[in-house]
Amino acid sequence: MATEKEYFKGISKIPYLPSAGPHDVMCFKQYNAEEVLLGRKMEDWLRFSVCYWHSFCGTGADPFGSQTLHRPWNQGTPMESARNRLNAAFEFFTKLGVKYYTFHDRDMAPEGATLEESNRNLDQLTDLALQLQAQTGVQVLWVTCNLFAHPRYMNGAATNPDSHVVAYAGAQVKKGLDIAKKLGAENFVFWGGREGFYSILNTDVAAELKHMANFFKMAVRYKEKIGLKCQFLIEPKPKEPCKHQYDYDAMSVIGFLKHYGLDDHFKLNIEPNHTTLAGHSYEHDIIMASAFGMLGSVDSNTGSPDLGWDTDQFPMDTKSTTLVMKAVIEQGGLQPGGLNFDAKVRRESTDLEDLFIAHIGAMDAFARGLRNAVRLIEEGLLPGMVKERYSSFNQGIGLKVEEGSATLEDMEAFIKQNGEPKVASGKQEKYESIFNHYI
Amino acid sequence: MATEKEYFKGISKIPYLPSAGPHDVMCFKQYNAEEVLLGRKMEDWLRFSVCYWHSFCGTGADPFGSQTLHRPWNQGTPMESARNRLNAAFEFFTKLGVKYYTFHDRDMAPEGATLEESNRNLDQLTDLALQLQAQTGVQVLWVTCNLFAHPRYMNGAATNPDSHVVAYAGAQVKKGLDIAKKLGAENFVFWGGREGFYSILNTDVAAELKHMANFFKMAVRYKEKIGLKCQFLIEPKPKEPCKHQYDYDAMSVIGFLKHYGLDDHFKLNIEPNHTTLAGHSYEHDIIMASAFGMLGSVDSNTGSPDLGWDTDQFPMDTKSTTLVMKAVIEQGGLQPGGLNFDAKVRRESTDLEDLFIAHIGAMDAFARGLRNAVRLIEEGLLPGMVKERYSSFNQGIGLKVEEGSATLEDMEAFIKQNGEPKVASGKQEKYESIFNHYI
Amino acid sequence: MATEKEYFKGISKIPYLPSAGPHDVMCFKQYNAEEVLLGRKMEDWLRFSVCYWHSFCGTGADPFGSQTLHRPWNQGTPMESARNRLNAAFEFFTKLGVKYYTFHDRDMAPEGATLEESNRNLDQLTDLALQLQAQTGVQVLWVTCNLFAHPRYMNGAATNPDSHVVAYAGAQVKKGLDIAKKLGAENFVFWGGREGFYSILNTDVAAELKHMANFFKMAVRYKEKIGLKCQFLIEPKPKEPCKHQYDYDAMSVIGFLKHYGLDDHFKLNIEPNHTTLAGHSYEHDIIMASAFGMLGSVDSNTGSPDLGWDTDQFPMDTKSTTLVMKAVIEQGGLQPGGLNFDAKVRRESTDLEDLFIAHIGAMDAFARGLRNAVRLIEEGLLPGMVKERYSSFNQGIGLKVEEGSATLEDMEAFIKQNGEPKVASGKQEKYESIFNHYI
Amino acid sequence: MATEKEYFKGISKIPYLPSAGPHDVMCFKQYNAEEVLLGRKMEDWLRFSVCYWHSFCGTGADPFGSQTLHRPWNQGTPMESARNRLNAAFEFFTKLGVKYYTFHDRDMAPEGATLEESNRNLDQLTDLALQLQAQTGVQVLWVTCNLFAHPRYMNGAATNPDSHVVAYAGAQVKKGLDIAKKLGAENFVFWGGREGFYSILNTDVAAELKHMANFFKMAVRYKEKIGLKCQFLIEPKPKEPCKHQYDYDAMSVIGFLKHYGLDDHFKLNIEPNHTTLAGHSYEHDIIMASAFGMLGSVDSNTGSPDLGWDTDQFPMDTKSTTLVMKAVIEQGGLQPGGLNFDAKVRRESTDLEDLFIAHIGAMDAFARGLRNAVRLIEEGLLPGMVKERYSSFNQGIGLKVEEGSATLEDMEAFIKQNGEPKVASGKQEKYESIFNHYI
Repeated sequence: MATEKEYFKGISKIPYLPSAGPHDVMCFKQYNAEEVLLGRKMEDWLRFSVCYWHSFCGTGADPFGSQTLHRPWNQGTPMESARNRLNAAFEFFTKLGVKYYTFHDRDMAPEGATLEESNRNLDQLTDLALQLQAQTGVQVLWVTCNLFAHPRYMNGAATNPDSHVVAYAGAQVKKGLDIAKKLGAENFVFWGGREGFYSILNTDVAAELKHMANFFKMAVRYKEKIGLKCQFLIEPKPKEPCKHQYDYDAMSVIGFLKHYGLDDHFKLNIEPNHTTLAGHSYEHDIIMASAFGMLGSVDSNTGSPDLGWDTDQFPMDTKSTTLVMKAVIEQGGLQPGGLNFDAKVRRESTDLEDLFIAHIGAMDAFARGLRNAVRLIEEGLLPGMVKERYSSFNQGIGLKVEEGSATLEDMEAFIKQNGEPKVASGKQEKYESIFNHYI
Repeated sequence: MATEKEYFKGISKIPYLPSAGPHDVMCFKQYNAEEVLLGRKMEDWLRFSVCYWHSFCGTGADPFGSQTLHRPWNQGTPMESARNRLNAAFEFFTKLGVKYYTFHDRDMAPEGATLEESNRNLDQLTDLALQLQAQTGVQVLWVTCNLFAHPRYMNGAATNPDSHVVAYAGAQVKKGLDIAKKLGAENFVFWGGREGFYSILNTDVAAELKHMANFFKMAVRYKEKIGLKCQFLIEPKPKEPCKHQYDYDAMSVIGFLKHYGLDDHFKLNIEPNHTTLAGHSYEHDIIMASAFGMLGSVDSNTGSPDLGWDTDQFPMDTKSTTLVMKAVIEQGGLQPGGLNFDAKVRRESTDLEDLFIAHIGAMDAFARGLRNAVRLIEEGLLPGMVKERYSSFNQGIGLKVEEGSATLEDMEAFIKQNGEPKVASGKQEKYESIFNHYI
Repeated sequence: MATEKEYFKGISKIPYLPSAGPHDVMCFKQYNAEEVLLGRKMEDWLRFSVCYWHSFCGTGADPFGSQTLHRPWNQGTPMESARNRLNAAFEFFTKLGVKYYTFHDRDMAPEGATLEESNRNLDQLTDLALQLQAQTGVQVLWVTCNLFAHPRYMNGAATNPDSHVVAYAGAQVKKGLDIAKKLGAENFVFWGGREGFYSILNTDVAAELKHMANFFKMAVRYKEKIGLKCQFLIEPKPKEPCKHQYDYDAMSVIGFLKHYGLDDHFKLNIEPNHTTLAGHSYEHDIIMASAFGMLGSVDSNTGSPDLGWDTDQFPMDTKSTTLVMKAVIEQGGLQPGGLNFDAKVRRESTDLEDLFIAHIGAMDAFARGLRNAVRLIEEGLLPGMVKERYSSFNQGIGLKVEEGSATLEDMEAFIKQNGEPKVASGKQEKYESIFNHYI
Repeated sequence: MATEKEYFKGISKIPYLPSAGPHDVMCFKQYNAEEVLLGRKMEDWLRFSVCYWHSFCGTGADPFGSQTLHRPWNQGTPMESARNRLNAAFEFFTKLGVKYYTFHDRDMAPEGATLEESNRNLDQLTDLALQLQAQTGVQVLWVTCNLFAHPRYMNGAATNPDSHVVAYAGAQVKKGLDIAKKLGAENFVFWGGREGFYSILNTDVAAELKHMANFFKMAVRYKEKIGLKCQFLIEPKPKEPCKHQYDYDAMSVIGFLKHYGLDDHFKLNIEPNHTTLAGHSYEHDIIMASAFGMLGSVDSNTGSPDLGWDTDQFPMDTKSTTLVMKAVIEQGGLQPGGLNFDAKVRRESTDLEDLFIAHIGAMDAFARGLRNAVRLIEEGLLPGMVKERYSSFNQGIGLKVEEGSATLEDMEAFIKQNGEPKVASGKQEKYESIFNHYI
């Protein structure tokens, strides 16, 4: 059974809405799980998920300094710590009022000396997870395999120059898929942490891409074999840790998937901090993935645009959350995906309560974003302006372009008859000013 | 007939190799067109091309200052200037000893008040071009249509929210394809200068992408109709002039082409300065495009990695040219593509001779790169190290991965039997040090 | 006398606050010039200024396309156009309700064939400006000399390798200072548009820096000689147009000024879009300049963090305007500086009304920022948390550090006695969440 | 006495020049310590130094993966390991043939439970270091204190909001200066690893800057008190680990030092990978620091321009090393500074020999750079072109600008008499092409 010990003492269930709570952490001012917007409860639009690795395994170490976060659940043997951690996590999920979590295989259970031992560790811990899920109703948004932290993967997992390593990765993914089935995960994520290269001089790109494609095909076949129903997701990321990551951004992954005929089996898990590192704006890859019908889930975090690496900060900017939620609403929601907080408290945020504060702040920022997006869509002013802007595609030569029936000869004839088009202001500042009134 | 006037007076045919020329500009120290390397003449590996717009239409104006380059051929009416310019260009091609050139429709002939007038201008100028090509043997590497400079295209050409503008672009491309056929162009390039968006707030991304795909399909149909044999190329570029360009980088274009079933009809024209703006290393998109079988041609220039826009400098770095030429040799050459100098003399390089100096410096840098790459490949030290690094895919479980016949179950069994793989040094510094001895 | 013609027809004085105006442009929803906050009128905190070059001289041309903005005041000879433009500008200032403007010498009056002619042009136009200032009460926030657009300055003005060009720049600045006096400018700005280098290979950095310092010293001496009372400001900018600009960012300029003993005579004019290009956050240089007592004025605009050049967009982000106004309030205001909109409507914003819409949107964004900052300061929650965080410097060893009387020996003794300090959470997410409730 | 154990077995003293060594690592092809260039031995121009932390303490862990480098000297208790490590390091220095090393206090001796214990550890290890220095002739290029890795410093050392932490940093620096004296260090470096801020919301910038200045003043006073003769150096770095580092780049530090009257006591230790992160070109801060008379030493490494953090790679680009060595020669050398390899083998370079290969490759790259720079200077072609370019400052109005005696009135008079200057080509491509023939 669950929590023998209470890790977040004095922090009772977080009250929703204005009144201050019986504890000293902040409470929700914006998020109200049960409130219905556009016919759906806020919690169903947002489908928040807590990520296990940052919030329960994070140490605060960075490349320039050692551990700052000393968590009370890290006590005893690795397996004891792992059990404590899981109990603490479910206490947290419950008090925060979030219904999903995400994890890597190696976050939940420590790696053993052999694959067999690692798998046994996973069996034990997932037994406990299953029990805690049943007790609390908290579900797995997605599982993923950590194919990047162990030294064996330093030169890649599916793209390793040594097929022995590729085989190890395959064995690990097999178990990961088994676990996903056991815990009822709604999605399974592949993040190619070491799939890429550090130096082009020692790399055979064509070979590596082919191996990666073949690796994904094996995963698809095994998923089908065991009857696992979850959605497969690839998470694009540029620049880190490899100098070049094959899954650079949304379009890179889409190109890869389509080239190898894998696009029916995968969608994308977009992380805005990865998007900005790839040189795009915060919401860019969410919008592009959605336009290609490939947006599966969102790792909701943020970076600092002036820094060149993944800082995984809690998302606090309501302009950004508004744009994300507008795109999410427009595609009808993210389910079976969700908004996973792939975010970590700063290494200087050493109080246990900072975990609550950070999540509450971010959930409030998304609640504001959702309300803004709903108002934007319901009032219809901006969407109407956009619709009007493209209205020439509803008839005549425009309709033929839209339908794909126009020819270059048609177009030349149209211009010979109609001459120069009128110049129409893009009115960007008007759109921006109006948008500002919604946030 | 050709040059009534000599624009580059005192500059006779550029001598190859060491001896100083009869003029005061630099001469080639490295490039030797006729020299045979790996069974092919240097000029056939390199297939240099001069770009018309920068070298003959460039004014030196930048966003902070007005024209600095006053060329002697810009005299008389626009059509007279255009004829002078074309004569000057062929004088330059010939003296420099380059066999190809590239141009936009609007570089060669001025835009008229109507489409009909613009087309007539093009007819006249291409008559002259055809004559000069015949006289000199210089050929068109590629033609492209300028669908971005005229104000009508400010909100996009194929992706314009107004179908009237899309039609104008189509009419212009029709003529561009006709010209390509007339002049025997070996390729036709599409650069989506305004295909993208400045603000997501006023943009319907899905609609615009569909229109762009339909537009390309019309071009393919018309090309087939008129029996034009050249290769279609798309040139990726990020960030400029749109905040977001749809053709961000090689993988973005590949994803787009495959999504819309256009990948059999197009290859890529890669410009390294665009690649670096997209956050990649200089040679990256050349290697990625080649790995996907999509490398068609190269716009050989360079940027400054500390600047955030396309500076279109002449390529002078022999490390970079070596990596490019290695990739080109490995795919068997670029034909029918080539190395087009999409580069402009700095606006401060106001002497006419600077045009020669810049091209000679860049051609020498590529000649060094070619020699280096040939030596690298012929000596076989680095390629051998790479081959050895991937040798485990030639048998056993590796071969099954390579062939796509392995399963996750095979992999688990292999690991249960063979345990942990050995850690193998990536030896990046060794590769870098050895590579250094080739440049 | 003033406006013979009305350029912004149908746009009467912009109404403040909710009620819609008699025209179809947006009206202020947030800005209320007369409202008093912290003892000062909103217009006195904000001191908005319209910039002449973008809003009245801008053409919409960019490096990839030609003019899109065709303004009705550009008619007749250059001098007639210049007069029309000035009248239109004052009509705009008045209707918008802004009390300041800024200009370059060459914006106001066209450059003549000789220095003498340019100066005569300036004399005539500034006569008209003086008259319009008197009629309307609109004042000059600052004047600056354009020492970058003319081809003579392509290799630098004060740092040109040719002393003849340096002399031309000096002659131009002399006239600029005379004009500043004539028009009662409150500040005079130096932006070193071409002071830097494109290639280190042809540059003598030490010589150029010395020449620039000597140039500034001449300006200081002449200012004192003619009894000009305005504040001298240097505007830092990185990367554009030179590959390296000497005035890279706030700290670069401060270092330069202090090295050459010029720091008593200059403050800084900070432009956030320049700050972000230098790799800092939006508000960074405002805060750094203020911390060093050097913040003189602000060019309030914004860029796109994913783009690598100065886009000069209208500032619309209220988080940013809040941070700027907080810093401004904390140093007691900007006077004699102000908030100059160094921003241009997008080249696609071709309607004349877009000029109003853009300014109104930006003024509203700053009005929101001001209100937010006032509330933040008045409620005192965040400032109190910061004060508490540094409270150990009010006594004991902390006070000795603060006062500069501590020694390393004191510190060692303190640690031997007191041991390890306690770790205190930085609580960044708490600060961010609270800050969010103010915007 | 020294090495009881040989850590780099089979690797005897590295032979200089062509002949292959008796071992399987690479040998020098370019570096020849005794060769005299411009009147000085190669080793005296280059003054190479091995950095202790990367090469002897590095583990290969990165934010995404655990330790990959398992070194044979890490055995036994922390103090035993520390002794082994020191012996191994001196074996390496000697075999490599490098005369200097650099270290942080906490690299050499493990941190104890108290300051007193840490100091005792340092005393013991520096006794051994002193002995090894005497045996081998290897010297300390510089010492520095690690004021960033321990959790106590997470919010800053000299700029910590808690004066107790500032005191701890002071106590640590006191000991560091004592050690520097004991070991005869030629320089002492301050790298402000946590001096900056992660969030402006919780930071009092003005207070922190003042504390940092007062801290440096204490160090200066103590240095003078104990008669320590070494040069103080500050190492600028942007972005890492703080979002904003106060010592952003060379000019930031120069500005700070001059503001607080500290510039006579400090020079700069420039690291090119930090320079590129600050948005400059590789050689930029070396040239700027030198122009201001502030270049003290160089941390010779490189980054990847497409990555946004400090990768600390071994410098392998001969174009870059040529530019650095040209600047070093022009200021008469770096002494008492040197070229410290603040570089680490990649985490995938797991063989012990990779340490040799990396250093040899980088030393060869600098040897090539030195030879190139010497040839460039001796042949005088490029320097002569630069001198000619600025020759107008040797007489007339130019000389008055140079000497600071010109006035704006002089300049106006000069222009009225002499009119428009001639436009002179900057000839960047010519400089680049010629430069290319030297590398």
